Amino acid sequence: MKLAKTYTFLKKDLSLIEKTLEETVYAEQPVLHDASTQLLKAGGKRLRPVFALLASKFGDYQLDKIKNVASSLELIHMASLVHDDVIDDSDLRRGKPTVKAKWDDQVAMLTGDYIFAKALQQFTEIDDPRAHQILSKTMIELTVGEIEQIKDKYNLDQNLKIYLRRIKRKTALLISSSCQLGAIVARTDRTTEKALFKYGYYMGMSYQIIDDILDFTASEKELGKPAGSDLVQGNITLPVLYALENEEIRSDLKKAFSKPNEVTQADLQPIITKIAESSAIEKARKVSDRYLQKAYHSLHLLPENQAKEALANIANYIGNRKI
Amino acid sequence: MKLAKTYTFLKKDLSLIEKTLEETVYAEQPVLHDASTQLLKAGGKRLRPVFALLASKFGDYQLDKIKNVASSLELIHMASLVHDDVIDDSDLRRGKPTVKAKWDDQVAMLTGDYIFAKALQQFTEIDDPRAHQILSKTMIELTVGEIEQIKDKYNLDQNLKIYLRRIKRKTALLISSSCQLGAIVARTDRTTEKALFKYGYYMGMSYQIIDDILDFTASEKELGKPAGSDLVQGNITLPVLYALENEEIRSDLKKAFSKPNEVTQADLQPIITKIAESSAIEKARKVSDRYLQKAYHSLHLLPENQAKEALANIANYIGNRKI
Repeated sequence: MKLAKTYTFLKKDLSLIEKTLEETVYAEQPVLHDASTQLLKAGGKRLRPVFALLASKFGDYQLDKIKNVASSLELIHMASLVHDDVIDDSDLRRGKPTVKAKWDDQVAMLTGDYIFAKALQQFTEIDDPRAHQILSKTMIELTVGEIEQIKDKYNLDQNLKIYLRRIKRKTALLISSSCQLGAIVARTDRTTEKALFKYGYYMGMSYQIIDDILDFTASEKELGKPAGSDLVQGNITLPVLYALENEEIRSDLKKAFSKPNEVTQADLQPIITKIAESSAIEKARKVSDRYLQKAYHSLHLLPENQAKEALANIANYIGNRKI
Repeated sequence: MKLAKTYTFLKKDLSLIEKTLEETVYAEQPVLHDASTQLLKAGGKRLRPVFALLASKFGDYQLDKIKNVASSLELIHMASLVHDDVIDDSDLRRGKPTVKAKWDDQVAMLTGDYIFAKALQQFTEIDDPRAHQILSKTMIELTVGEIEQIKDKYNLDQNLKIYLRRIKRKTALLISSSCQLGAIVARTDRTTEKALFKYGYYMGMSYQIIDDILDFTASEKELGKPAGSDLVQGNITLPVLYALENEEIRSDLKKAFSKPNEVTQADLQPIITKIAESSAIEKARKVSDRYLQKAYHSLHLLPENQAKEALANIANYIGNRKI
């Protein structure tokens, strides 16, 4: 099943958000314009807008309001990706050259700053102070997650707790905030808001773990970048953490990482293959499944409607997604 | 006269803002903590908080409110400096190593992001939607100014209009916004708000022009970085624009910039000296003076009080400042 089929009833609203995104990143300055639209045109699932819209369906759904929240969240996500690609020195994303590859690190840094600022401008349309507090807190955590990721690179002595805290900051909080802000703008009751926040948090955790698994198990074509890129960049994700329990893999990786700056895709290919074929993948998938179950469970408190069905379907899709 | 003497009556309030700044950039993550406080500890004039506080004195001055605006503005300024040092590849600021020099470009990028996010969190305490719109618009213009600066580097075919537009975005708007936001939070009438905005804008223009002049005329000790750094980084400031009217300087600089990435301080030293001794400095100073006069003039509409006197004194100081 395709992801978009789970929420066909949002199609028209999502088109409007796509248009809003295009209009928002518009810049008169040519480089800034081209760089800002580079990632936008590469597409993407627009998961954060989808979550915000669906969450809003549990309250007073007003498209002209939720539109600003949804596009703002997607822009913050995009800005963080543009900066992320500088950190990870990535040349490809969604099968297209990254901003830092097509221009350089400096243009990418400023393009990210510009998209952040545009996201904030979009968000000023929302007059609820709590919404602003949630958004800024999420942005802080996002940055802290990014810096933790840099500091933890190539470090083989990490544990599950450190990994989970990092992906919470890096990914899960922006998704849980998307759900929560959708609820807040639609003025749902607090119980509904909390349930949606929890759903988003668990979904975000599961989503990132699956992402980290796919980096080993999907093909280059499916990923839009070479498989094993995370490891080449020194990122120790959940499959790697479990694979490190195998002394042979640990020793191989320790050797390969002895000169971090010289590690190439080719050097690591045997280790990437070993991890992809190891039981670490299944172990990581089990952790993701536990979060997915919690996400389903969070939906229990919500009334039955089309949006709830879509949220459950998305959870199902995320659990089985191949890309 | 020392700058601080012009507003001794703010001393206690400025101490509180200094404390707020320290508390705000506090981070549990050690690298982020050290990097964020690096620039804070290097000091600085805290001009934006001073302007915000003084502007607030024309209305209902509430320290607990204006404190958040003032510290937020200084943090946005600081974040932009941290990113600026990446763009300009600067190793020193205010006589101390920059974040990018002490750590690296990636840490500097994320430290800037973190300080931006913290600034926004601070600003969520303000419940006026117009204040949020002004702040986000200013942040957008700041980024556009930065990207214009990159794109205009080493380009000797610029004119006054391009330079003025760039410094408006890069510097003047954040200062005019500091004045305007101070007025808004204190709920002054619109005429007062507009006069303060204008004062800030003209002051900001003058301030940046003087900054660009001092880069040629001040000593390394006064600047906290080598003299002529702007030119070495390829930034064509107002003194350079005027100096380029001299065919000899134009030809020398064109030659020096033929391989932009290889230009050193030593290569440019003769040109830097020539510009410093040329009439370009005086011409640039005249432009700054015109803005200063306009800044004074903007104060006419405001009632006589201690704050107005301080604003006039600051204008006087900025016009004569040696650093």
